[in-house]
Amino acid sequence: MHRAGREIHYPPIVDLLDPYILLVHQGMVEQMFIDDLQERGIEVKRNTAFMDFAYGSAKSAALEVTCAVDVTHSKRTMRTSFVVGCDGAHSAVRKSIPGATPVGASSDAIWGVLDGQIDTDFPDLWSKAVVYSEEAGSVLLIPRERNLTRLYIELKPESRGSTSRDELSQEFVMHRAQEIMHPFELKWKTVEWFGRYQVGQRVATKFSDERGRVYIAGDASHTHSPKAAQGMNTSIHDAWNLAWKLNLTVRKLAKPALLATYEHERRKIAQDLINFDYEHANAFASGDSANLANNFRQNVRFISGIGAEYEPNVLNVNNKAMSGSGVAGGDGSSSSNGGGGLRPGCLPPPAKATRYVDANPIDVQLDIPMLGQFRIYFLCNSVPAARPFLDTVCGLAVSGSSFVGRISAAANASYTLQPPAAAPHDEFVRPARYTPVSGLFTFALVAGGDKGGFDMTDLPAALRDSAWTIYLDDVPHLDATGKGCTQKWLGGLSAGEVAVVVVRPDGYVGTVRVWADGGDRERGVEAARWLDEYFDGFLEA
Amino acid sequence: MHRAGREIHYPPIVDLLDPYILLVHQGMVEQMFIDDLQERGIEVKRNTAFMDFAYGSAKSAALEVTCAVDVTHSKRTMRTSFVVGCDGAHSAVRKSIPGATPVGASSDAIWGVLDGQIDTDFPDLWSKAVVYSEEAGSVLLIPRERNLTRLYIELKPESRGSTSRDELSQEFVMHRAQEIMHPFELKWKTVEWFGRYQVGQRVATKFSDERGRVYIAGDASHTHSPKAAQGMNTSIHDAWNLAWKLNLTVRKLAKPALLATYEHERRKIAQDLINFDYEHANAFASGDSANLANNFRQNVRFISGIGAEYEPNVLNVNNKAMSGSGVAGGDGSSSSNGGGGLRPGCLPPPAKATRYVDANPIDVQLDIPMLGQFRIYFLCNSVPAARPFLDTVCGLAVSGSSFVGRISAAANASYTLQPPAAAPHDEFVRPARYTPVSGLFTFALVAGGDKGGFDMTDLPAALRDSAWTIYLDDVPHLDATGKGCTQKWLGGLSAGEVAVVVVRPDGYVGTVRVWADGGDRERGVEAARWLDEYFDGFLEA
Ligand SMILES: Cc1cc2nc3c(=O)[nH]c(=O)nc-3n(C[C@H](O)[C@H](O)[C@H](O)COP(=O)(O)OP(=O)(O)OC[C@H]3O[C@@H](n4cnc5c(N)ncnc54)[C@H](O)[C@@H]3O)c2cc1C
Ligand SMILES: Cc1cc2nc3c(=O)[nH]c(=O)nc-3n(C[C@H](O)[C@H](O)[C@H](O)COP(=O)(O)OP(=O)(O)OC[C@H]3O[C@@H](n4cnc5c(N)ncnc54)[C@H](O)[C@@H]3O)c2cc1C
Repeated sequence: MHRAGREIHYPPIVDLLDPYILLVHQGMVEQMFIDDLQERGIEVKRNTAFMDFAYGSAKSAALEVTCAVDVTHSKRTMRTSFVVGCDGAHSAVRKSIPGATPVGASSDAIWGVLDGQIDTDFPDLWSKAVVYSEEAGSVLLIPRERNLTRLYIELKPESRGSTSRDELSQEFVMHRAQEIMHPFELKWKTVEWFGRYQVGQRVATKFSDERGRVYIAGDASHTHSPKAAQGMNTSIHDAWNLAWKLNLTVRKLAKPALLATYEHERRKIAQDLINFDYEHANAFASGDSANLANNFRQNVRFISGIGAEYEPNVLNVNNKAMSGSGVAGGDGSSSSNGGGGLRPGCLPPPAKATRYVDANPIDVQLDIPMLGQFRIYFLCNSVPAARPFLDTVCGLAVSGSSFVGRISAAANASYTLQPPAAAPHDEFVRPARYTPVSGLFTFALVAGGDKGGFDMTDLPAALRDSAWTIYLDDVPHLDATGKGCTQKWLGGLSAGEVAVVVVRPDGYVGTVRVWADGGDRERGVEAARWLDEYFDGFLEA
Repeated sequence: MHRAGREIHYPPIVDLLDPYILLVHQGMVEQMFIDDLQERGIEVKRNTAFMDFAYGSAKSAALEVTCAVDVTHSKRTMRTSFVVGCDGAHSAVRKSIPGATPVGASSDAIWGVLDGQIDTDFPDLWSKAVVYSEEAGSVLLIPRERNLTRLYIELKPESRGSTSRDELSQEFVMHRAQEIMHPFELKWKTVEWFGRYQVGQRVATKFSDERGRVYIAGDASHTHSPKAAQGMNTSIHDAWNLAWKLNLTVRKLAKPALLATYEHERRKIAQDLINFDYEHANAFASGDSANLANNFRQNVRFISGIGAEYEPNVLNVNNKAMSGSGVAGGDGSSSSNGGGGLRPGCLPPPAKATRYVDANPIDVQLDIPMLGQFRIYFLCNSVPAARPFLDTVCGLAVSGSSFVGRISAAANASYTLQPPAAAPHDEFVRPARYTPVSGLFTFALVAGGDKGGFDMTDLPAALRDSAWTIYLDDVPHLDATGKGCTQKWLGGLSAGEVAVVVVRPDGYVGTVRVWADGGDRERGVEAARWLDEYFDGFLEA
């Protein structure tokens, strides 16, 4: 046996804040969610299985959902506006949506999974490693916490004969692993878990019903081989994508177009994942290490999460040049391509800045807690030079004469009537610091130049009230690439330019645009109109 | 009122891994210690006050300690080998040590302290800020968690007249603060804590008794003004410095010289702190903002913690050149001065590297958990070129023919008889990974060059067994200064050179030395002898 090569999981080319693998098993992740819900007074109801739903007679009427409860499986009916099926690969919710068929293939490859403490002379036990034997098949080794190693063991048809999947024993699987790993010794000191699975790569044709009332997420909507370790990750992001859209819809702040983006965005990701997974699994099965490494290199952005990118839609808007409007660089995306990494439908590149109010260095993309609100960032090199623009756009954005101002007020009315469920530790997060203007928008400023260049009192009211989200772009040395936020996001701005960046509640970039002359109030009026147009695409008061 | 200036708390010149202030109040810190003890089966005994101690008749006999227990204050006697008094500024233990007198001055400045939620138009509420009024005095504002602000309020003699310290009321203190902050408004929405104190700056003449059996740490040994926020920090470091020395002494692995370094090292720090604090408090009281900023700039390394530096002693050894020995750069410290930041008696500069075994990027100075053991790092550019050196020095260091080998075996015998108190979460830390050779030494390697340059099996046994502490110096781009570990620590090494760095159990650098020719086995013999000499200075089997 010989080592065909070594690859770095996160090469410097992938610009990540945390360039490493942290293995956190699913039980820990689920417990975090359960605890957080509990702290907010919400209990997960167990032993309640979804069976079917029926529409009410009126178009806006509640759905009637039938469930089987408790060990008796007695039926119970409940009424609800929306149903989200996160009920796994055999989803009953999916089956209840007309036309939502899982499409794809189930390979006849069967794999065994073993979690345990291993005793071996194999040298690469603590790196993610693939061992391939032409006759016996492949083993994937994944180091885990507490000295555990997870092994995925290929069980070739030749080896298992006519034994059915569920009859393949732990001893059999161990024996296969030993054969593949030969001449290295392989023994288990403990075994904590054993399972076997067959790889199915399928995406549902639809992620929701025609009326936009019933949704599926996670394994209910897509399945694939577990070897790329993307299943839970992708499933959580499905839910995350859907949750804020549902929230705004339930609050009657959204047009139907908003919820429609869920399927558009997440089905594309599921498809990307299956494509990657398909190539990955094939490269894996072929035992062609060059091929596998190549597949990995091509997909490392995707595996890291930052490569999960959405297509243009009402939320992800590339701006065309407005003739005579003074827009620098023509459109947002081409201006980004001129050196910056910000692109609608993608996550913003990690960037550091100094928080003005307390002079702490922070990560711009993470600093504003995600509370279901959009973030509107203004970026400029000089606040004094950009003041006419900022005064105008901010003034309009909080006034009743703009759509943004009106929808903002409507959101505040809704959040006053029905505030978000609070937890004791919110006291440390201080959500109110980030929603002084409204529960729908956080206004933020990333200003170049020196701290002395402006004072809080120089800012328009909307920004003055947003003291916790005023940043100075003055710590490029803290970033691994040596670049500041404006540089990383936009490739820099020239002296008079002002950029407006909208980041969606889930952290994805919504839209971006650069104005050439921050000294011209008329540009601020345009920017306010441009914001109105963007939000009018999917919100309504 | 005008703003005289702004200072950055951690300017880039101070090379810190975490360049920000994190406010964690003392209750949280104490709870962490209490929880950790509890998990390890140790309960803090409350209501037991130290009264006095007496030596037994034989020199090595146990001490007899008299305590007052419970509300009844009934006396109880216990026997112990050592006493450590962490009993605060009025320490009864200190009073029981002949000749341990607190020396210094108590100023007549009285200060009030108020923790609460503040309502103000003062713009710098969320930065650490000093407000100085010539007539009314000074206020120091410190932002805290949960919207709290701590205020230190000077109570000038003119203002308080003949009222004694403990009679100064909360209302009086609030009123003083309002006067100093005028023309800004200052109101409290809530008050969580109120106190007043008089600044005493004192260091005890001795930190232990003549026989080296009774020690004092923390406020028992030094007090100063709280405004530099160094009291708890320094106190914890006292205990931390003393703990591992006591452990090795109790296990009969140490000469008396080891415990003697406690007073030598920590008294110097207490003195540094008082000097800084004295200047700081004076600059503060004088209201000279240029002076205060200047004092701050000079002392920012000290405030950050990395400026707490020990003087040379048996533990902190600067090496003289050994003539004809092939030592590069003459002595460790001068070689460090040639560009690297490693100095005996100081903390090592933060540095990144890749952990070989699982290819994760780590912080070299933090990666090896502190388990009471010394770390012996070997640094070289090429393992193949350094192999003769490494084979020899490591071979000797684990054999009975070296002092290091013998003391290592003695330590293992002791840890087998009396293992460290374990906690459930050790399962995640895996202490055994870091002590394969012994409970006294972790061997580590920081190797330059390419991953392909060597394999684990190429290493001498002591390093092969230390799989979790083999590092590759190949991620300079992850460091904020753009430099790798060898560069940051030693200013680089030339092709054939090998450096040996000893880091003490508390993370301070013990000693460092560079050998010119890693290809020469004789140099490895010298290095083993040099290690023996160093450890023979304070350990014994
Ligand atoms: C061996 C293996 C290893 C894996 N490793 C990784 C990895 O390393 N990283 C990663 O990201 N992912 C991994 N995955 C994938 C991951 O486990 C799944 O993608 C993830 O659990 C999907 O979450 P889910 O909530 O959509 O579905 P599930 O976790 O399957 O949860 C579905 C839930 O719905 C309940 N349910 C079912 N039917 C009904 C009904 N009718 N009514 C009500 N409730 C119902 C079930 O009881 C269950 O609680 C792995 C999977 C396998 C099999
Ligand atoms: C207003 C104020 C603000 C401060 N802010 C900071 C800050 O921001 N950062 C910082 O690092 N430090 C700060 N400090 C300093 C810090 O609180 C002290 O330095 C620290 O508490 C000292 O710890 P210690 O364990 O030595 O003493 P203490 O915390 O005083 O603990 C002594 C303990 O010994 C017990 N004891 C007393 N006598 C006996 C006896 N005879 N027998 C047995 N037990 C006894 C006491 O009950 C007590 O539990 C501040 C202090 C003050 C007053």
